[in-house]
Amino acid sequence: MALIVQKYGGTSVSDIEKMQNVAKRIIKAREEGNSIVVVLSAMEGETDRLAQLAYSASDHPAEREYDVLISTGEQVTISLLAIILNKMGCKAKSFLSHQVKILTDRDHTRARILSVDTERINSELKKGNIVVLAGFQGVDQNDNITTLGRGGSDTSAVAVAAALNADYCEIFTDVDGVYTTDPNIYDRARKLAKITYEEMLELASSGAKVLQQRSVEIAKRYGVPVYVRSSFNNELGTLVTKEDREMEKEVVSGVTYDRNQAKITIVNVPDKPGIAARLFTPISDQNIVVDMIIQNASVEGFTDLTFTVSKKDMKEVQAILKKVAKEIGANRIEYDENISKVSMVGVGMKSHAGVASRMFAALASEGINILMISTSEIKISCVVESKYTELAVRVLHDVFHLDSEDK
Amino acid sequence: MALIVQKYGGTSVSDIEKMQNVAKRIIKAREEGNSIVVVLSAMEGETDRLAQLAYSASDHPAEREYDVLISTGEQVTISLLAIILNKMGCKAKSFLSHQVKILTDRDHTRARILSVDTERINSELKKGNIVVLAGFQGVDQNDNITTLGRGGSDTSAVAVAAALNADYCEIFTDVDGVYTTDPNIYDRARKLAKITYEEMLELASSGAKVLQQRSVEIAKRYGVPVYVRSSFNNELGTLVTKEDREMEKEVVSGVTYDRNQAKITIVNVPDKPGIAARLFTPISDQNIVVDMIIQNASVEGFTDLTFTVSKKDMKEVQAILKKVAKEIGANRIEYDENISKVSMVGVGMKSHAGVASRMFAALASEGINILMISTSEIKISCVVESKYTELAVRVLHDVFHLDSEDK
Repeated sequence: MALIVQKYGGTSVSDIEKMQNVAKRIIKAREEGNSIVVVLSAMEGETDRLAQLAYSASDHPAEREYDVLISTGEQVTISLLAIILNKMGCKAKSFLSHQVKILTDRDHTRARILSVDTERINSELKKGNIVVLAGFQGVDQNDNITTLGRGGSDTSAVAVAAALNADYCEIFTDVDGVYTTDPNIYDRARKLAKITYEEMLELASSGAKVLQQRSVEIAKRYGVPVYVRSSFNNELGTLVTKEDREMEKEVVSGVTYDRNQAKITIVNVPDKPGIAARLFTPISDQNIVVDMIIQNASVEGFTDLTFTVSKKDMKEVQAILKKVAKEIGANRIEYDENISKVSMVGVGMKSHAGVASRMFAALASEGINILMISTSEIKISCVVESKYTELAVRVLHDVFHLDSEDK
Repeated sequence: MALIVQKYGGTSVSDIEKMQNVAKRIIKAREEGNSIVVVLSAMEGETDRLAQLAYSASDHPAEREYDVLISTGEQVTISLLAIILNKMGCKAKSFLSHQVKILTDRDHTRARILSVDTERINSELKKGNIVVLAGFQGVDQNDNITTLGRGGSDTSAVAVAAALNADYCEIFTDVDGVYTTDPNIYDRARKLAKITYEEMLELASSGAKVLQQRSVEIAKRYGVPVYVRSSFNNELGTLVTKEDREMEKEVVSGVTYDRNQAKITIVNVPDKPGIAARLFTPISDQNIVVDMIIQNASVEGFTDLTFTVSKKDMKEVQAILKKVAKEIGANRIEYDENISKVSMVGVGMKSHAGVASRMFAALASEGINILMISTSEIKISCVVESKYTELAVRVLHDVFHLDSEDK
């Protein structure tokens, strides 16, 4: 008998009929002899509706109150699912964060889970109840309601699984697993049976949005096996887990892309100590995340500095650079929003040489110019003109034979 | 500086614009130097929408879960109002029952408030915050969410006012006070400046639905002055309070009516001890409330027994009587749904003779036949054919000069 945490996303609980299907799936797992804890998101679109209501009341809604408002979305789904489960003859109880104590810090709208008290959950499981928990939310130590940010229900589920020492955590969503690349871009994309936490993190940060990044970090820290599955079929999905020997054989697990980046080049900066700090400190002070940073070798005491930020942050960065440029004696600043980042991810890269050169050669063979390169232990990213995004993804997928399990 | 509890009903918070008006009213009371605690209902129609959702999930939704679901309605309004108040520069915080501890019994969907912890409310008031509380709900001692039944926000507000020892409680609603009779039936109805708790209770039980009955009971027990006011104008409304000398002068405060009753007559029952018990026990066992009961004097060992119940309970009562009739040797049973109860209410009746006879004469003068009579210390009720309802109300209103303050 296993202890399983199942998380269902907003598309899986968007109406009563879909919830009935979810209930059947839960009852099946229960009848197979397992103890089940369920974590739910709000109905698809509901969090947006509530957020709109808040913004129609104020341009800058008080964050404590905003959390009280949008946390009602999950309260609706957990109570409805518990009603349905009970109607189907399966004992179930819903719980909010203050009732089981899912404790977070006080950082409203982007809180982090500090601890999950397992006492009430375990006692309800012992009584034979299905425990249905509201995802996406917690309470601070004064019982104020907090929320975890978009996708936070994944994090709730994994944190609960870690605290309960559950056998595994199933994340039911509207895709049936993690693919070698975006199936919308390339129909030869293949579903992966397994992927490591590290690869999943790199995929997430490169734009694949199957799991909230923090949920993967927690899963990795506590060694929680996570299955990403579809709630609309019975496929096994993808297991996100720690690295094993078999997985090391795979050089590359996936190709991913991110169209949301913009590139900024500061041309001919004097190459003196402290320049980078003077440039990036005011940017990070505004909570703007800089992704790639590249500095060319210095020529006659001058260098070019290139970095990328999210497109949405471009205006603010431009305003900051206007001030800083003169200070640091920069000659010219170039802005380019017309780019994409294409990345290859795989734990095997650590022990396999030549992945980078094969990647560069493949892009060159299609006449795709590489604007920036950045590498980590298990990832190589190239910035290319955005019009080449799909082509780059397809050619890399082909070159590394990602459509086949024996490569 | 006074401590005031203000309660706003669903029609007063049905959209952002209306909530902005509510916020202005709160800020005005605050600027006059008062400490304000606000109790809110859900947006008009929202509780019905949530209830429908529950009933689309199950014919008999689990009551614990039903309460979790419908309590979200007030969570939405309190957070939105707090957002609006903060935007207007007025510090405000919303609180749910588990946060301030509004403790109830475990009777889901019809819970009764046991206690209100004032510690957190007082500490937030001291910090200069407006405290915005969710009406209609509480928590039991295990922190399960409970609700108080329809109209429960009135009860929340009065219970909070009693616990805080507030100077008074204002109930803002879509009518601007308590009237001598229903203004929709008679345009000469006059708004009362004052009414006693006892009269308010009799009016409520006779069909006037301005305040939830339990809220009046609590106000009476703790001596909380309650103002019934409109949130759409600045009229003073009606003060519900304890009896004083001035009020004793008023013989009759109002005329009220109830079209929801049905009359049942059991003809020619043998007049033996225990008959009434055998008749009414199975009815009360089904939680059916019997309002008026009249037994005529016995003639030759036989009597007629007449009583009224809510129209909605008629079918069930008929089923019960079918079984009981033979047992008690009843000859015939007559059912009549075509009736109304018209009542006169007034604390002055206690010390004024002749009210009943004036009432009967007035009805007779219009040819209205009286089918049943029942009296209490401060109320006289007559059952009449329902087609006479409006006429009876108007003639009684005229005879007792209720349109004028000097009668």
